[in-house]
Amino acid sequence: MRFVIIGGDAAGMSAASRAKRHNPDLEVVVLERGQDVSYSACNIPYNIADPDRVIEDLVVRSAATFINKLGIDLRTGHRVERIDRTARTVHGRTAEGTSFAVEYDQLLIATGARPIRPNIPGCDLDGVLAVKNLVDGRKIKTFLRDRQARRAVIIGMGYIALEMTEALTKRGLKVDLIKPRAGLLPWLDRELAEPVKEHLLVNGAGLYDGHAIERIIAVDDHLEVVADQLRLAADLVIVAIGVEPIASLARDAGLELSVGGSIAVDHGLRTSDPLIFAAGDCADSYHLVTGKKAWIPLALRANRAGWAVADNVCGGRVALPGIAGTAVFKVFDMQIARTGLTVHEAQGAGFDPVSVVIRSRSRAGIYPGAQPIHVAMVGDRTSGRLLGVQITGTDQVAHRINAAAVALLAKMTVTDFYQNDLAYAPPFGPTWDPLLTAANQLIKKL
Amino acid sequence: MRFVIIGGDAAGMSAASRAKRHNPDLEVVVLERGQDVSYSACNIPYNIADPDRVIEDLVVRSAATFINKLGIDLRTGHRVERIDRTARTVHGRTAEGTSFAVEYDQLLIATGARPIRPNIPGCDLDGVLAVKNLVDGRKIKTFLRDRQARRAVIIGMGYIALEMTEALTKRGLKVDLIKPRAGLLPWLDRELAEPVKEHLLVNGAGLYDGHAIERIIAVDDHLEVVADQLRLAADLVIVAIGVEPIASLARDAGLELSVGGSIAVDHGLRTSDPLIFAAGDCADSYHLVTGKKAWIPLALRANRAGWAVADNVCGGRVALPGIAGTAVFKVFDMQIARTGLTVHEAQGAGFDPVSVVIRSRSRAGIYPGAQPIHVAMVGDRTSGRLLGVQITGTDQVAHRINAAAVALLAKMTVTDFYQNDLAYAPPFGPTWDPLLTAANQLIKKL
Repeated sequence: MRFVIIGGDAAGMSAASRAKRHNPDLEVVVLERGQDVSYSACNIPYNIADPDRVIEDLVVRSAATFINKLGIDLRTGHRVERIDRTARTVHGRTAEGTSFAVEYDQLLIATGARPIRPNIPGCDLDGVLAVKNLVDGRKIKTFLRDRQARRAVIIGMGYIALEMTEALTKRGLKVDLIKPRAGLLPWLDRELAEPVKEHLLVNGAGLYDGHAIERIIAVDDHLEVVADQLRLAADLVIVAIGVEPIASLARDAGLELSVGGSIAVDHGLRTSDPLIFAAGDCADSYHLVTGKKAWIPLALRANRAGWAVADNVCGGRVALPGIAGTAVFKVFDMQIARTGLTVHEAQGAGFDPVSVVIRSRSRAGIYPGAQPIHVAMVGDRTSGRLLGVQITGTDQVAHRINAAAVALLAKMTVTDFYQNDLAYAPPFGPTWDPLLTAANQLIKKL
Repeated sequence: MRFVIIGGDAAGMSAASRAKRHNPDLEVVVLERGQDVSYSACNIPYNIADPDRVIEDLVVRSAATFINKLGIDLRTGHRVERIDRTARTVHGRTAEGTSFAVEYDQLLIATGARPIRPNIPGCDLDGVLAVKNLVDGRKIKTFLRDRQARRAVIIGMGYIALEMTEALTKRGLKVDLIKPRAGLLPWLDRELAEPVKEHLLVNGAGLYDGHAIERIIAVDDHLEVVADQLRLAADLVIVAIGVEPIASLARDAGLELSVGGSIAVDHGLRTSDPLIFAAGDCADSYHLVTGKKAWIPLALRANRAGWAVADNVCGGRVALPGIAGTAVFKVFDMQIARTGLTVHEAQGAGFDPVSVVIRSRSRAGIYPGAQPIHVAMVGDRTSGRLLGVQITGTDQVAHRINAAAVALLAKMTVTDFYQNDLAYAPPFGPTWDPLLTAANQLIKKL
């Protein structure tokens, strides 16, 4: 039996390795259009921040390991161009231009996502770069090293934009961020976004939201981002306005698509063709809170889905419950974490959301180093259910979100959540953890 | 109506304040035998560590605030000696020796716990001190200041002993710990205890477990702790072998007692006399995992129980589900966290426990500052339920335990727990959080 995988990153290589471990006799073929497999994309900004590290440090396992040690038929430089579902065959072309065809018994599409390229004149200029894969990372590192870049403009203010702000600032660049619509991290509660904004400004970033970008132009030895009533000079422009699923193979093969153009899969990661799976950033998932389809491309889901596909290819019956939309990132010392729904998302999903924002402290008030911590909590008036939590602060934020994430899988009410026996010691929080304080306040409003 | 409270610490003052807020007409009388009320006992070691802070910094609210602002009839220096349930009256004696009697409509016993004094000759010597209340803290600070103490011996190796090890080491003392039985933190999985032990040794502590202590003697200008085959010199001896509930008033009044001699209360904090509540370190609770009575005196429960008593005194019908036994503390940079049951406790409670210990990292492997983290996870073979988790490590341990604590309230299986959508970003953990890795390993054994 032959299991063919299109795409050799997190979901694809997780599936390949696990399938081969389950069943060494299974023929596992991975077709990767690029040269890099199994690298940590999430670490790219941190690698860029450090001039002493090479981008290849991000490779978790080499192609040779997959081929020689695990016995996976990994073919890099193989771009799949078409899936023939009737003949159960994928067709494509190698980097050298040779066409190929591979028959499959079961197929996994793990083509990932790509940065959205804005429709702005000048986006193709030298020095305008995205941040998605090792090729991008390599380009940016080379650019920083060879051009002695001193100023960067980042288009976008999402999490990759902010992680890159930290990385480039650490490399000594002055960083300006610009985006057409108003508001940093628009999904974040405004009270929670405020300290993030201040933290960025304190760390030297320029924030220019609400400026429509007209074009990027080359002026003398540098670039300029031209917006209404604003021109920002830069040696380097990073485009980080979001990603979109790479789903054209699936679409052209007539597979069902879903939210944001992602590939629709069931709880067992099967597409509308039962012989074809999809996993990772190209595929959708069920949201634990709404029960509906969602497209939230993140690394843990990609790895988990890859494993689940392998299990099911090998005869298992794994069904993943779905995602809570838990995410965390940091910019400088500020940590931003979320799980579940925002008020806006909750309204959209048909809930009757009620929310509170509380300000507490990361440690006991009299313990040295206690920092402000903000928690926004959303509950449903009708059912009392906890719907979502967001937290920002500079100390001990990241892991706090997981208590709420677990509560979402358990479908806890806010009242139940408030009864949780959370850990307390002065270096780690007040007696009532900020999460419990938020729940207590929210109960009063529900 | 008169609500009388015996004891003016966490549970007592929480109940007093909340009852008065609920019902300003309620007469609230607090009888506290000492002079200090509403202070943060958990912060005592950290206050001792800092010579520039006075112990009074730990007072959260002054007696004057309770009396003048909240209208609570707070009487310090009032020791209750007897509860007359028939006459609904408490009898006692003031610090000046005057006897008093106060009638109650409803009564709360919040007398707390006291350090166990070992039966060792010499425990009454000057310089042999416990760590429980502000009086103890004051004595230790004065001792450190006036005697230029250079060496301390701590009897015990529990969490207070370890917190005091850090505090006294920071004050420049050489600290030796001694206890009769073998093993540091005996409830902690041995693989997890090992890095804690190493961390203590690296930080200069001497560990002498398995040494029966014969006596403490005064020799010239210092003390000596004399054990079998060992004599440890000290300017200061801290006794920290555990605490016991102060329940003699309840016992003498014929109220039902419980685990460890604590006062038995139902989910509404009522003792066997429906007009008498008990809360805080003197009272028992239900364990969320076993459903049985447990006595685990910790601050969050004391505060929560105090509030629940106030709600019920004022006509509410609050029932607390119970405790997961979640606890965290640190010694130097090592964090130790637990929730739920150990294998031994699970066996005792009638489960068929299976456990794993995994070693992972606190951050993505290639992210700077990643530190080893150990997770022990216990599940029940029969039901598949998650029963308990322990974590040790020097980076980002404390809040990780709360994800497991929430799962215990939700009575999740290990298989369900593994499906949790936990946060991931390189600065905060590997893609698969150590908790998920442990769950994955445990599923294979269940």
